[in-house]
Amino acid sequence: MKKVIYPGSFDPITNGHLNIIKRAAQIFDEVVVAVGNNPDKNTLFSDKERVELIKKSVFDIKNVSVTEYSGLTANFIKSQGTNLIIRGTRDSRDFVFEKEIANLNSLLDNQIETLLIFANKDYELISSSMVKEIIRFDGDVSKFVPKPVLSALKVKVKHEKNKKIY
Amino acid sequence: MKKVIYPGSFDPITNGHLNIIKRAAQIFDEVVVAVGNNPDKNTLFSDKERVELIKKSVFDIKNVSVTEYSGLTANFIKSQGTNLIIRGTRDSRDFVFEKEIANLNSLLDNQIETLLIFANKDYELISSSMVKEIIRFDGDVSKFVPKPVLSALKVKVKHEKNKKIY
Amino acid sequence: MKKVIYPGSFDPITNGHLNIIKRAAQIFDEVVVAVGNNPDKNTLFSDKERVELIKKSVFDIKNVSVTEYSGLTANFIKSQGTNLIIRGTRDSRDFVFEKEIANLNSLLDNQIETLLIFANKDYELISSSMVKEIIRFDGDVSKFVPKPVLSALKVKVKHEKNKKIY
Amino acid sequence: MKKVIYPGSFDPITNGHLNIIKRAAQIFDEVVVAVGNNPDKNTLFSDKERVELIKKSVFDIKNVSVTEYSGLTANFIKSQGTNLIIRGTRDSRDFVFEKEIANLNSLLDNQIETLLIFANKDYELISSSMVKEIIRFDGDVSKFVPKPVLSALKVKVKHEKNKKIY
Amino acid sequence: MKKVIYPGSFDPITNGHLNIIKRAAQIFDEVVVAVGNNPDKNTLFSDKERVELIKKSVFDIKNVSVTEYSGLTANFIKSQGTNLIIRGTRDSRDFVFEKEIANLNSLLDNQIETLLIFANKDYELISSSMVKEIIRFDGDVSKFVPKPVLSALKVKVKHEKNKKIY
Amino acid sequence: MKKVIYPGSFDPITNGHLNIIKRAAQIFDEVVVAVGNNPDKNTLFSDKERVELIKKSVFDIKNVSVTEYSGLTANFIKSQGTNLIIRGTRDSRDFVFEKEIANLNSLLDNQIETLLIFANKDYELISSSMVKEIIRFDGDVSKFVPKPVLSALKVKVKHEKNKKIY
Repeated sequence: MKKVIYPGSFDPITNGHLNIIKRAAQIFDEVVVAVGNNPDKNTLFSDKERVELIKKSVFDIKNVSVTEYSGLTANFIKSQGTNLIIRGTRDSRDFVFEKEIANLNSLLDNQIETLLIFANKDYELISSSMVKEIIRFDGDVSKFVPKPVLSALKVKVKHEKNKKIY
Repeated sequence: MKKVIYPGSFDPITNGHLNIIKRAAQIFDEVVVAVGNNPDKNTLFSDKERVELIKKSVFDIKNVSVTEYSGLTANFIKSQGTNLIIRGTRDSRDFVFEKEIANLNSLLDNQIETLLIFANKDYELISSSMVKEIIRFDGDVSKFVPKPVLSALKVKVKHEKNKKIY
Repeated sequence: MKKVIYPGSFDPITNGHLNIIKRAAQIFDEVVVAVGNNPDKNTLFSDKERVELIKKSVFDIKNVSVTEYSGLTANFIKSQGTNLIIRGTRDSRDFVFEKEIANLNSLLDNQIETLLIFANKDYELISSSMVKEIIRFDGDVSKFVPKPVLSALKVKVKHEKNKKIY
Repeated sequence: MKKVIYPGSFDPITNGHLNIIKRAAQIFDEVVVAVGNNPDKNTLFSDKERVELIKKSVFDIKNVSVTEYSGLTANFIKSQGTNLIIRGTRDSRDFVFEKEIANLNSLLDNQIETLLIFANKDYELISSSMVKEIIRFDGDVSKFVPKPVLSALKVKVKHEKNKKIY
Repeated sequence: MKKVIYPGSFDPITNGHLNIIKRAAQIFDEVVVAVGNNPDKNTLFSDKERVELIKKSVFDIKNVSVTEYSGLTANFIKSQGTNLIIRGTRDSRDFVFEKEIANLNSLLDNQIETLLIFANKDYELISSSMVKEIIRFDGDVSKFVPKPVLSALKVKVKHEKNKKIY
Repeated sequence: MKKVIYPGSFDPITNGHLNIIKRAAQIFDEVVVAVGNNPDKNTLFSDKERVELIKKSVFDIKNVSVTEYSGLTANFIKSQGTNLIIRGTRDSRDFVFEKEIANLNSLLDNQIETLLIFANKDYELISSSMVKEIIRFDGDVSKFVPKPVLSALKVKVKHEKNKKIY
């Protein structure tokens, strides 16, 4: 029974993330999507919202669960009774970043193993920040995010704009 | 039951490869080390020798087997009843190379998944070609290769030098 | 009649940008330098100021015009009746950034073509942020920016310092 | 009237090259595909064969012509009455290579301008050497090369194998 | 008598920095560790504190001194009666950054020479920002920083947390 | 008294190498340019010729000597009574290569220190292989190599061509 953790900020989950989750669910017995709670980082969606959006997007994949966590990722992994992390990589810049994080995690706990899988070519241009950049300018992101995210983004952006006006 | 293939040329197997094999054997139920038979590539050790050296180096790891193969890697993977490849990566140059190969494999068979794990820091400077470069100049490679490889290298190099002299 | 757009933040225009503009004006019939108006980004010069400084720097190149725009670059390009973007690249880091932006633009409008030209060796060390960093410490930037920018920078910096004092 | 040269070895032309040619033909008035004749480089197809295969692949694009050349690329460009080179780039490794060549060309003739366009996502995994690698192992390359190349490859490979047997 | 300057922000000094200092002290007659005072950058430790922590960490190395400076690094180097800068590099990302800074410095003063040495493998995963990230989540950084920094970090973090509470 | 070794193949020495030598001679008390003798590598100039060409190019720099060596670089460094290597780097690709070699050397002898300096912008496009590529096509390399190399190249190339003809 191999359990793997897929940690990230998922602000919000994209079709690229969803593709990684689906493929991880084929390779491993259990996949936990873990939304990192970083109090210092300004996110568009709250922790709760991000977890909710992922849950709605993966509801039909049996061996996937979603949770949030705070503190060091290394500690969270251990608390889940596993030592396996999975992450998607698109290009060599992603790789350098993942290597740094993986090294940090193994310095903190040398049992932790990070596995990288390549982003699917169809999704490798998509990132959460790109989605937010496009939506900010009223662009169309329907090709880039799961349906539940699309409606949440519309509400959120409308709300943000109202805040600015008043 | 997850079976993963670790393909490569292993000319010869290094302590870096051995570390990847050991860690893969912890993550997956079965690991097949697969020595690629490339008729156009000049190798120091023959296919048979490379397989033998790996077998001697992994004899005490229960869920690891060693084989050789020829032809397209994608076809070999399928013939093994799995779709999983594992590869170690040391730096972004390795990553770019692995991405290219992974893309080629998934173009030929879109079921194939390539998983990357990071080379252990203690072994990330070691490569087969580096080992051959040092041995060519009578340097000491005992820290870099498993014991069976060390004695094989000494015999091989002595033989090569004799060939040159006569 | 080929018209190309050269979008950027130009905060402020440097001799490196100017070199790209001059070379683009040799290759294409019409070059539009387009100053992106990003409300969330803190710029040293306002949109109007940045447009003014470019206009003063390119006044003697016949087939170049300057404008500002807001919203998605992809929409602006279309509104200009062309599909061509030109950008200068200095190194592989620039390249990775440009590839991401180009991909985003072609996802939003698959007619858009981004052309890269290499920064001239004499200017490849110059960036707007470097210029601002040097000026902040009272360094000499006369080799790096067009004359109109030099005087504007002096006024701006003096003003900023006064703001800090009182 | 802007004329651009697309130099390369095209051994053989792939669907990736063809995509670059088609897009260049939309941007420029005239595109010359120029097959470099390098006597020291072992090619699968002869110069004449490579030119023929490109001609057959681009016969329906009006403003594209095909030729071969030898000697320095910089001299050939000048002899064609233009100063413009176009090249496709897939990743940062390609970019570094192109930068080196572009620098060499501009050292030899500082009028030469090299324009890069990004490989289309659908073709960015394809290279001539990959095609040759797959065909060597009897793999299927019909998705990667224009039809005329496909039949030529089959003949060539059969011939090579016969040579080996006898 | 060769004197070399090792500039940086050292917020705080890590075992990686300390290793560079020790090796530089073997190569050069005099090493000056220079703490850059950047009024716009939010640091965890003040200039004075950072200087103090380095002094405590290098007190037993005879030819090393510690100082702070403000303004352009190029001017500071000259004021020290030398033209030599030393910096550690861990990976190609570091290299690209160092190249940019070295270029800037030599544009401002073409006598300045920047020498890079490779981070020791045992320390190449350590950075000041990583240390701060771990400490923020109550992780253990005792392997990453000199002893004086360890106690200072504990005080600082406790203080920061108290500030948040009240 | 600091002595530094500048190892390389120098086939042939370029103005880029010469610039590194001159700058190294300003930083260190003694610079030894060391021509690696690699029996397996096909060089245009013999070891003796390469040493001669460097000697003629550096004859007026007092603290520079030239020698050849064979075997592992690590052993040669030690035999010279120093532990310092200097190398020039042009871009991140060079850096990755240098890091690998430096790591190999420090694995073989952990006292060895490799110092990198940045290629001067005026010379960063020049490499020995580029020079040979241009000369092969009768191009002009007078801007790229010291005078003694220029005449030697002309003789060598003429000789090579004669060999081909008869």
